[in-house]
Order: sequence, then C-alpha cells, then structure tokens
Amino acid sequence: MRQYISSPQNALIKQLFQLKEKSRERKKTNQFLIEGKRELSLAIKGGYKIKTLLFFADLFSQSEAEAISKYGIDSIEISKEVFQKLAHRDSTEGIIAVVHSKNHNLESLKLKTKNPLILVAEAPEKPGNIGALLRTADAANVDAVIIANPKSDLYNPNTIRSSVGCVFTTQIAIASTDNAIAFLQKYSFNIFSAILQESEPYQNQDYTLPTAIVVGTEATGLTEAWRKNATQNINIPMQGVIDSMNVSVAAGILIFEAKRQRDFK
Amino acid sequence: MRQYISSPQNALIKQLFQLKEKSRERKKTNQFLIEGKRELSLAIKGGYKIKTLLFFADLFSQSEAEAISKYGIDSIEISKEVFQKLAHRDSTEGIIAVVHSKNHNLESLKLKTKNPLILVAEAPEKPGNIGALLRTADAANVDAVIIANPKSDLYNPNTIRSSVGCVFTTQIAIASTDNAIAFLQKYSFNIFSAILQESEPYQNQDYTLPTAIVVGTEATGLTEAWRKNATQNINIPMQGVIDSMNVSVAAGILIFEAKRQRDFK
Repeated sequence: MRQYISSPQNALIKQLFQLKEKSRERKKTNQFLIEGKRELSLAIKGGYKIKTLLFFADLFSQSEAEAISKYGIDSIEISKEVFQKLAHRDSTEGIIAVVHSKNHNLESLKLKTKNPLILVAEAPEKPGNIGALLRTADAANVDAVIIANPKSDLYNPNTIRSSVGCVFTTQIAIASTDNAIAFLQKYSFNIFSAILQESEPYQNQDYTLPTAIVVGTEATGLTEAWRKNATQNINIPMQGVIDSMNVSVAAGILIFEAKRQRDFK
Repeated sequence: MRQYISSPQNALIKQLFQLKEKSRERKKTNQFLIEGKRELSLAIKGGYKIKTLLFFADLFSQSEAEAISKYGIDSIEISKEVFQKLAHRDSTEGIIAVVHSKNHNLESLKLKTKNPLILVAEAPEKPGNIGALLRTADAANVDAVIIANPKSDLYNPNTIRSSVGCVFTTQIAIASTDNAIAFLQKYSFNIFSAILQESEPYQNQDYTLPTAIVVGTEATGLTEAWRKNATQNINIPMQGVIDSMNVSVAAGILIFEAKRQRDFK
C-alpha cells in the first residue's frame, strides 16, 4: 500500500520534526534522521537499521523508493512542505530516513587487530569539531573512537553533516572518562594524553603497541584523570607566537604519526 | 583633545562600518578593523600600524586608551550604540582599531632560514579554513604562507577571528598560482603538491630542503598547474570508507611531518 503524507501538521511528521530538533527526543526513542542518499548509503553500509524512508517524489523517484522498499523498509511519499520541514540542509535529493540508533557501549566495541589504535576525544563541544575528528578517524581507519563525557549527541544533524557520513563508518563508543580509562587499562592500551604541560614531544614516542591517543577541548584541555592515568603525556611542540591549535588538526597530526610508525598497516 | 562620537550615523562611523562589512572597501582604503585586546596586541607585535583606536569606555578604561595614545595613536571614545554597530562579535573588551593593511607581495617575503618551509593554500574558500591553516602555520613557525588565487580577503573579520590572531603573526603572501610557482622555482623550492591521483605517499618524501607544501580545496583539489610543476605530487594514504579529509587537518599532517624530519628546528 502506497502511503502519502501532505500535511506538515500530520502527527508522525510533527514527531519526526522533534527528532530532528531535539537531542532529548533522539535519546528517548533511540531514533534519528538521516538526509541524503550518500549518508543513507553509508549508514546502511555501517550496519544501521532503517525504520522508515520518506521521499519527496519530485526529487527522489518512486522507483528508487520501491527498490529500497524491497529490503523491507516502509516508504512514505511526502509533499514538498513536509520535506522542507524535515530537511536540515538545502538538499536536492528528496530523501529522509528514520534510523535506529546503535549501541555505543564500550563493551560493544570489536577490536579486531593485534595492536589497535583508538582516538579518544574528551568533551568535544562543537558538532563541526566532532565531525572533523570522525573524518580523520575514518581516513586513518582507526579501530575505534571513544567520546568521553560528550557535550552533544552523536546524531545531531550538524555532526552527521560535518562528518560527511564518517559517523556511520567508524566504531564509536560513548562513555564517562572514568569508564573509558578503565576500559583502556583493562585491555592494556598505552594511553597518550595530549597535554601542554609536563609532557614529552609526541614525535619521540612509540605508537606501535595498543595505543589510545587522547585529545581534549581547545578551551580547557584534558581533565586531570587523563593526565594522571596516561602511560605518557605528550605535546605537539608549539613554535609560533600563539600556543593554539585546532583540536582536529592536533588529532590528525598525532593519529597520522602513529599510522606512519605502523607503516600505514 | 578628547574626541567622542555618540551617533552611529556619524560619517566616520558609517565609513568604518563599510570597512567591517565590505572586502571592496578594505581593498580600496588599505585599511581594516581589529576587535579585541589580544588580536590588537598580536597585530602590533606583527608590525601592523594602527591608525585610530575606538573605545567604549564602559568596557575599556580611559587610562588604557591614554596609555595607548602615548604611542601616537589617535583614540576616540565611542558610545555603546557605535560600539555595537562596529563590533563583529559579542566582545566584552570595548576596543576596535582601524589598522593599515600590509603589503602581501611575494617579493616582500623575508626568508631567513637556509631551508625554508612554506605552506601554500590554493583558493581556500571558507574563512574558518583559512583561519585553521594560519593557526597550523603559526604553531609550526613556517617561514611563510602563500595564498594562491584567494577567494576571500585576509582581513575578513571571520578569518581574523578563526585564526585567533595568527593572521598577524605569520608572513603571508597573496599571489596568482602562476606567480607563486614562478617564485618557488626561482628560489629552488621543492614543491610537494597534495593530490590524490598519480602521487606518492607523503611519508616517503624528504622535506628537509627548501620545501613548499601545497594544498587545494576540499571540493576540487589543486589546479593542473600545481600538479605539473610539482617536484613530487604527494598523498596522505586514505584507509577508510570515505576519501575525504578536512584541508586544515591534511595541511597539519604534512607540515608536521616536515617539522618532524627537521627535528623541529
């Protein structure tokens, strides 16, 4: 049976609008929205389960929607008004999916390599920074990203967008700093905490064993727990006038030094 | 003589507002605005000449303004309304300066080291990306940054802000791609152009001689001229699902690999 919703005032549409706007709603329902073919295809590749597909037929063809519905996904045609209400960006693809969130527990991480490389970001604030960190994590194919004490949820539309879909391609755990440290210690990771004070230059360390590289916020850095529990605190030598570096640039430099030492294997 | 301007309709204030808003006006007058003590102090340190200082006395004390006026800088007290009109951000420092632009010709670059390291960014678009590139350039203390075929002007308030003042602490030249290549060849630089196709992994190259590291835009990469005139085209091995990396992260990885090879000297 073909479904069609034309009114932005429809009860389901109003509920999905809340899903777009409110982190609380996403947490409560364990669902979120994905917009665009590329992101959706990456999410399916990443093992995410689609609940419902909404498509605006002027932009997304009925046959495309039917092809997708063969996979057992409900699809609903929506009007232009409904599409515009739910779309986060100036998308020209006409497709929005309701997707089930994943479990991001630490113990659900699957570490398949002998010497895993993990990026830990503590309390990242801006969706744009989280997105850039996830792009770096994807490019380096790290084994996992741990977000410790997060300040915004992973399925914020701006995070999805700025990650260009890397939020779906990387294993991500969300945990408190204490639990993240306990996890890393349990699995014998060397913890390298990026801290300016009382630390060694990053380039003189060995990142070939199980390695966690930990970065904090630009404003306040890492909390004491990461400094105290580090195998080694490290810094990127700052040689300019201003002691300041974008957190995703710093993470990129550290992660790719680890990759270089591992011959990009 | 103490000057005070209370009206946002004052002719000078209207002209300065144009300076804030319009790249064309900045180019025509060779002047721009700086907001905040920290940025201003970095600009003075970087050899910029202040033309006029405007201060909102509730936030910036008369005595501070007088201390600055000892350096022969005109200072004008302004009302809250004028301050709000000229301020770009939610500043709490009450100070705005009219500053003379610098000369950014290639030939005005002073290369003081034997084996200079230069970062070249072709056609960077977003002020936030330029800001992040300049922060990396400052942190690495590169000899210069060349912006080839710029899409926005250096003194855009968003560029100044996102660079956290690094726009004032780094030698910057602005040039066409052709002139930039001619300059680098004239001074015998090894040109490493970051390009995905037909390129070698970055980590296998020698960056200890006079080195230019060239990055393009995320959307379209570098133009043909940089590929053809490179000593070596290089890539950062992409091992994830998505072939995509933030341009300032890529520049950070490449520049700091060069620094590592130079023992951060």
